[in-house]
Amino acid sequence: MGMVGGGEGAFIGPVHRMAAELDGEIELVCGAFASDPERSMRSGRDIYGLARERCYPDYEEMFAVEAARPPQAQMQFVVIATPNHIHYPVAKAALEAGFHVVCDKPVTHRLEEAEHLAELVSRSGLLFVLTHNYTGYPMVKEARNLVRSGAFGSIRRVVCEYLQGWLAEDVSNKQADWRTDPERAGVAGCFGDIGSHGENLLEYVTDLKIVELCADLSSFVPGRQLDDDGNVLLRFGSGAKGILFASQVAVGEENGLRLRVYGERGGLEWSQTEPNSLIVRWPDRPYEVRRTGGSGLSAAALNATRLPAGHPEGYLEAFAVLYRNFASALRATLSGTDPNPEMLDFPTIDDGVRGMRFISAVVTSSARGGQWMSL
Amino acid sequence: MGMVGGGEGAFIGPVHRMAAELDGEIELVCGAFASDPERSMRSGRDIYGLARERCYPDYEEMFAVEAARPPQAQMQFVVIATPNHIHYPVAKAALEAGFHVVCDKPVTHRLEEAEHLAELVSRSGLLFVLTHNYTGYPMVKEARNLVRSGAFGSIRRVVCEYLQGWLAEDVSNKQADWRTDPERAGVAGCFGDIGSHGENLLEYVTDLKIVELCADLSSFVPGRQLDDDGNVLLRFGSGAKGILFASQVAVGEENGLRLRVYGERGGLEWSQTEPNSLIVRWPDRPYEVRRTGGSGLSAAALNATRLPAGHPEGYLEAFAVLYRNFASALRATLSGTDPNPEMLDFPTIDDGVRGMRFISAVVTSSARGGQWMSL
Amino acid sequence: MGMVGGGEGAFIGPVHRMAAELDGEIELVCGAFASDPERSMRSGRDIYGLARERCYPDYEEMFAVEAARPPQAQMQFVVIATPNHIHYPVAKAALEAGFHVVCDKPVTHRLEEAEHLAELVSRSGLLFVLTHNYTGYPMVKEARNLVRSGAFGSIRRVVCEYLQGWLAEDVSNKQADWRTDPERAGVAGCFGDIGSHGENLLEYVTDLKIVELCADLSSFVPGRQLDDDGNVLLRFGSGAKGILFASQVAVGEENGLRLRVYGERGGLEWSQTEPNSLIVRWPDRPYEVRRTGGSGLSAAALNATRLPAGHPEGYLEAFAVLYRNFASALRATLSGTDPNPEMLDFPTIDDGVRGMRFISAVVTSSARGGQWMSL
Amino acid sequence: MGMVGGGEGAFIGPVHRMAAELDGEIELVCGAFASDPERSMRSGRDIYGLARERCYPDYEEMFAVEAARPPQAQMQFVVIATPNHIHYPVAKAALEAGFHVVCDKPVTHRLEEAEHLAELVSRSGLLFVLTHNYTGYPMVKEARNLVRSGAFGSIRRVVCEYLQGWLAEDVSNKQADWRTDPERAGVAGCFGDIGSHGENLLEYVTDLKIVELCADLSSFVPGRQLDDDGNVLLRFGSGAKGILFASQVAVGEENGLRLRVYGERGGLEWSQTEPNSLIVRWPDRPYEVRRTGGSGLSAAALNATRLPAGHPEGYLEAFAVLYRNFASALRATLSGTDPNPEMLDFPTIDDGVRGMRFISAVVTSSARGGQWMSL
Repeated sequence: MGMVGGGEGAFIGPVHRMAAELDGEIELVCGAFASDPERSMRSGRDIYGLARERCYPDYEEMFAVEAARPPQAQMQFVVIATPNHIHYPVAKAALEAGFHVVCDKPVTHRLEEAEHLAELVSRSGLLFVLTHNYTGYPMVKEARNLVRSGAFGSIRRVVCEYLQGWLAEDVSNKQADWRTDPERAGVAGCFGDIGSHGENLLEYVTDLKIVELCADLSSFVPGRQLDDDGNVLLRFGSGAKGILFASQVAVGEENGLRLRVYGERGGLEWSQTEPNSLIVRWPDRPYEVRRTGGSGLSAAALNATRLPAGHPEGYLEAFAVLYRNFASALRATLSGTDPNPEMLDFPTIDDGVRGMRFISAVVTSSARGGQWMSL
Repeated sequence: MGMVGGGEGAFIGPVHRMAAELDGEIELVCGAFASDPERSMRSGRDIYGLARERCYPDYEEMFAVEAARPPQAQMQFVVIATPNHIHYPVAKAALEAGFHVVCDKPVTHRLEEAEHLAELVSRSGLLFVLTHNYTGYPMVKEARNLVRSGAFGSIRRVVCEYLQGWLAEDVSNKQADWRTDPERAGVAGCFGDIGSHGENLLEYVTDLKIVELCADLSSFVPGRQLDDDGNVLLRFGSGAKGILFASQVAVGEENGLRLRVYGERGGLEWSQTEPNSLIVRWPDRPYEVRRTGGSGLSAAALNATRLPAGHPEGYLEAFAVLYRNFASALRATLSGTDPNPEMLDFPTIDDGVRGMRFISAVVTSSARGGQWMSL
Repeated sequence: MGMVGGGEGAFIGPVHRMAAELDGEIELVCGAFASDPERSMRSGRDIYGLARERCYPDYEEMFAVEAARPPQAQMQFVVIATPNHIHYPVAKAALEAGFHVVCDKPVTHRLEEAEHLAELVSRSGLLFVLTHNYTGYPMVKEARNLVRSGAFGSIRRVVCEYLQGWLAEDVSNKQADWRTDPERAGVAGCFGDIGSHGENLLEYVTDLKIVELCADLSSFVPGRQLDDDGNVLLRFGSGAKGILFASQVAVGEENGLRLRVYGERGGLEWSQTEPNSLIVRWPDRPYEVRRTGGSGLSAAALNATRLPAGHPEGYLEAFAVLYRNFASALRATLSGTDPNPEMLDFPTIDDGVRGMRFISAVVTSSARGGQWMSL
Repeated sequence: MGMVGGGEGAFIGPVHRMAAELDGEIELVCGAFASDPERSMRSGRDIYGLARERCYPDYEEMFAVEAARPPQAQMQFVVIATPNHIHYPVAKAALEAGFHVVCDKPVTHRLEEAEHLAELVSRSGLLFVLTHNYTGYPMVKEARNLVRSGAFGSIRRVVCEYLQGWLAEDVSNKQADWRTDPERAGVAGCFGDIGSHGENLLEYVTDLKIVELCADLSSFVPGRQLDDDGNVLLRFGSGAKGILFASQVAVGEENGLRLRVYGERGGLEWSQTEPNSLIVRWPDRPYEVRRTGGSGLSAAALNATRLPAGHPEGYLEAFAVLYRNFASALRATLSGTDPNPEMLDFPTIDDGVRGMRFISAVVTSSARGGQWMSL
């Protein structure tokens, strides 16, 4: 794989490298790691240990040079780990150059851009992975499988929350700066960065589709231009209801993505900070705690698990599940066979379009004082 | 004390008796326990061990007879433990007969009734306790004290939830029946029964006042006439935001009242099902867990604590804190002195009026499709 | 009931009063609360609100005067809430005066005294309750029932721990002083005070009998004459093995009594500080958490429960279960009928003798450098 | 690196590969993965994706061929991932061939073998890493740092437990078979496999040295030749006391390694199944929970952390910390400089010798009926 972005000071670049390589099927071979050519070179060498000739000054050159290499020696796909506003041009160029894409979320700056990428993907037949990485956890797979099995009956209500505290003050650093800058982050701050993870997770687990929402966003830190907190009421097509709230000013919270789902005959709860437990509730017997690698799990969960029960798997392992599923699909594609539908268990450009629609509706609803919007 | 309601099959009557008597300052001496005179007698004898002559066929007779007894031998106050729709006439009669009142929540059926009671209380100078019992927990006192101390700076966001699952199906029993019947429960089901506890708790802990809300209630169980679930967006006078969600169809949940508060420089989390822990979060150091009876607590918490750390106190003990504070205030009143302001730490008719206003706004907002309402 | 001990500054006296009276079946009517007559009077009046004539200067007088009262007007039983060294003479006198006894643990100073009391109880036909109060928790009843049901197969290993931290320094106060004084506490400190609770709990839940043990006690605080910490290896008659460790110098621990039991086909875990949960583990399915008042519980647990699920019951409620069972047995005895065996579910003088044997073996084993002892 | 063992059906081989490669500094280049040459080839190709010429039929040939390759093209060190009984001959051969070694624990079959390896290591100046991987967790580093800082005063008591349930029945599979076979596992079963991890962890965190112990081992599953459960009393040189218990028949337990340490002025608790939390207790203030990547941590913890707080790190990440520290030390060694002492933070052959001494004392103590042994 080749990487765009992810250079010095980046958090997500090394995460992509570790996650992609974890299962020994993917190797980082080249990259354009920074807008400054010198920093790109330095990052390639110091952080990723790459040879100088595979560190490119910019992504245009990388795509051109790599595409010209013999098939066996060229990168097979691009991972885009830049700030949000650069996702679109890079993804577009990659797809046009014939490369499969793995892209950070939110997929683009504006909804139209996402729709255009969807068109390009559809037309090209290339694979496009959107790294809503939290769907890679084994217990999230288990949760989804439980809902799909019908054990809970139809779903009635959902609670999804994502609480962080790291932007509670007016901090300035590489991570904070672009996320709070409308030029680089897009129309939403907290809801672009983490609210969209919540939306994706809840739709993934429940198969419900949000059809209406009412949002109330806030910017608590003085001078901040984008939302750093918000609450959203949700209505689903099925008649189910839900709530999604997210914050980056919830002091002391780390990375508190948490989902609760309640159906007619059962419910579940999962929390990202202790991701190896899934609480399952029933009307007429004690609640149970399903554990990664433990007894009584679905094939969906076991397929996403690498270690025996009690050997905690974490963020990188979940992230790597996306890459593993993608690698399987890619191998099938490269060998000309149809990928097994189970391999296709990763978020795609369609999730990206849906996420942009969600973000856009949230921002508009809030801007209108908390008016209900259709999605 | 004398009791109205709380007869055979009741849950809350014996709770009142145990809570009131726990500290050895109050004794149940008489009651009109049921609308049926025979059942009232039987309940008085079998459940409460009262002499026949202090078991009354109805509350009117009880008030008349007790008022006519010599001061030392008469009941000093009435506890009202009936279904909601009878709170108002009983409370009115009690106040008019000159008795102090302890009343279950929600205080009345309609807002106007609550306002009328407030007027009666104010005019009579009698004490009126509304049993929002969850405010009696030591760790709730600690939470309130922390917010008041200013340690968190100004409060930015609140999350309050109250999840139960016992009405997930169309059950029929004494407890369920009146709570789902508009005639007896009032305009709200879940939000009258438990949502109002949430509202009271969050305002008690934070001193914030809800000024606007947007509600989306549901009745998930077919045929149910009142809400059994709902989500509410909150705006406070200070600019803070919040969310309050409650359900009685959240399968497998027991009595999940939980509050989270985040300010500029700290936050807290408390859960009623494990009520002896209070999580306190800070921006720059590990989170801490304050424990009932433990080290480093405020006088407010210690005053509400009966046992050393590690000897769990529960629902009855918290309920009894209301009675203990009320008993202190009552003793002061009876002895003609002004009650110490700290003794007055219990919910009053003002909380009742406020709760009715909240319930009314929630129901109206939801009925209008989720429109914002001022409170 | 009448009380001996439990006067000013006492922790356990008011606990007995609240626990005994919780269910409305028992009332404290008299007491000899302190060795100093004046303090006894004052305690009776100020703490317990008793009339002067029922506050006695000493227990001898109380037993004589109360025994001379007409049957309906006399106390029915005595609760002994003194430091350990006075248990024996008071219990002996009470039994000889024909009163049933409720006594704190450890039952006596020396094993021979306990054996003598057992003889007196047996001869007199009087009831004797030893307040190993932790066996009163609903989830302890559930645990015991689970083991007895055979669901786990035969038990293989037990882990029981009891960790406190309040004696980590050389504190001096009423509670600490007598517990660290061999004259008043007996041959053991930590193991007399809390280790014996552990022994009782584990034998109660598992029905196993300790037959051999090897103990290593310590006195960590300089100058302390009795053990404040210790570890004990256990062997049971059935071939099962176990471990019991206790400490009063485990800094920061509150009252951490915790039991884990593992059988051939299942296991359980219970912790006193969160007493309303019982974790049950199985070989081939997710672990489950049974909750006080919740679904799927045994009659044994439900009988010990007063409130619906999610309304936490605590230390006082569990303590009160002993009193409630005792009250049932007492009523049967007083009415001349045989008490139902289920009513007899409380620790008796036999537990007291067994506890003294345990303490004695632990102290001897440790004194001999950690030699194995038979029990 | 080259690997010996870790072929088809192995759990630990792929763990080594993932852990070693996680930080992008080490690459698996060759191996002798199984005693059967054909299986070795197949494993190298299918599991690790290696070229045929780097998959060797046996370790002797691998060492010979690799040593003959030019320095840049040869493997730099060997990882030994075989059953216990083959550790010694492979490690001996590797050291004699001049290769650094990474070896699974317990290091050898018999104590004398471990001592001989220690001699070889010392004589050769080669690096030797023993994969007591649990010491790699950031919160274990934090725990150790806290104890070393003196914040707790001197340590008084330690509780270390390691509970698993997977051998509760007489299972037969690749993992279970060799662990229960004295020929392959050595003199101890449970205590060789996991008890020794406990010993290493507690000595690592506390810097205490076990000087005496008294052990009571059991083999609960009929027909099992080695211990599957055991309890050990510990005495440390400093006067501190402790307890170590381990089981592989604790039904339903996963991989429950847990450590509690109590000093004069503080204590801590860490559990491997939720490894990102460290509970720290103080005598006079609420307990705190330190979290991986969170606020207020030592450099020791932060150095072992790859992700921001709330992004859970697990078993592989901790394992990879050993490899990372080893890689730093190796780089220093290869470049002829003295490794920085902080890089040397990994278990070595000395831990191996100490572990063998511990295992040997435990087995002997138990065989003598639970007699105290010096270490």
